Amino acid sequence: MDKTYKAINFAEKLTLIDALWQPRVAAEVNGYQFKLVRIEGEFVWHGHPETDETFIVLKELLRIDFRDGAISIGAGEMFVVPKGVEHKPYAEQEVHLLLIEPRGALNTGHTGGDRTAQNVLWI
Amino acid sequence: MDKTYKAINFAEKLTLIDALWQPRVAAEVNGYQFKLVRIEGEFVWHGHPETDETFIVLKELLRIDFRDGAISIGAGEMFVVPKGVEHKPYAEQEVHLLLIEPRGALNTGHTGGDRTAQNVLWI
Repeated sequence: MDKTYKAINFAEKLTLIDALWQPRVAAEVNGYQFKLVRIEGEFVWHGHPETDETFIVLKELLRIDFRDGAISIGAGEMFVVPKGVEHKPYAEQEVHLLLIEPRGALNTGHTGGDRTAQNVLWI
Repeated sequence: MDKTYKAINFAEKLTLIDALWQPRVAAEVNGYQFKLVRIEGEFVWHGHPETDETFIVLKELLRIDFRDGAISIGAGEMFVVPKGVEHKPYAEQEVHLLLIEPRGALNTGHTGGDRTAQNVLWI
């Protein structure tokens, strides 16, 4: 019998995430994790000194503030925050994101604190 | 004055690609390339012995055949073909894809031949 393969459906997976700001791993590729996350409101300033960070917006409009400007990223758009660049995500409405970063990267980067997501689980 | 940042809009970028089966690089992250491609019809059997390959479907339905089965991947879905696994993409209608793979990975993997996209350009 043929082996069963199943695609990862972003919208379906997102319904399984019951809390905001809690990334969940949907796939892993060569040690990079594809994480789905629901966010709303403002995050903390942080940077990732060791890695670029990829944001792909699946729903609504994400704003990322930088120390010298800001960007708006809509559904069907992506943006790469270069390593070391401080940024602060903000979502006026609930935003659904696909994040791509190396396994072990923390959501709060070098800043840490109580917004750090611990034990990033798979969905 | 604030620096200007611009998101990568997949649909806009895809309008700049005038040929099928010609991946174009939209972004690079830590040496990984995010490539947009329009495909229709059948590709060649191939594998990538050195890397996993990520398919994110942006439009229509992609089928990937394996030696022991097949998978259908719709818009808003992704699938990771593990390194070394032979596969053959197929699109009944024109499909728009986002591929994520290390810089230098060839579309035809170890198979080569005249379907190999040379000089993968940025858009």
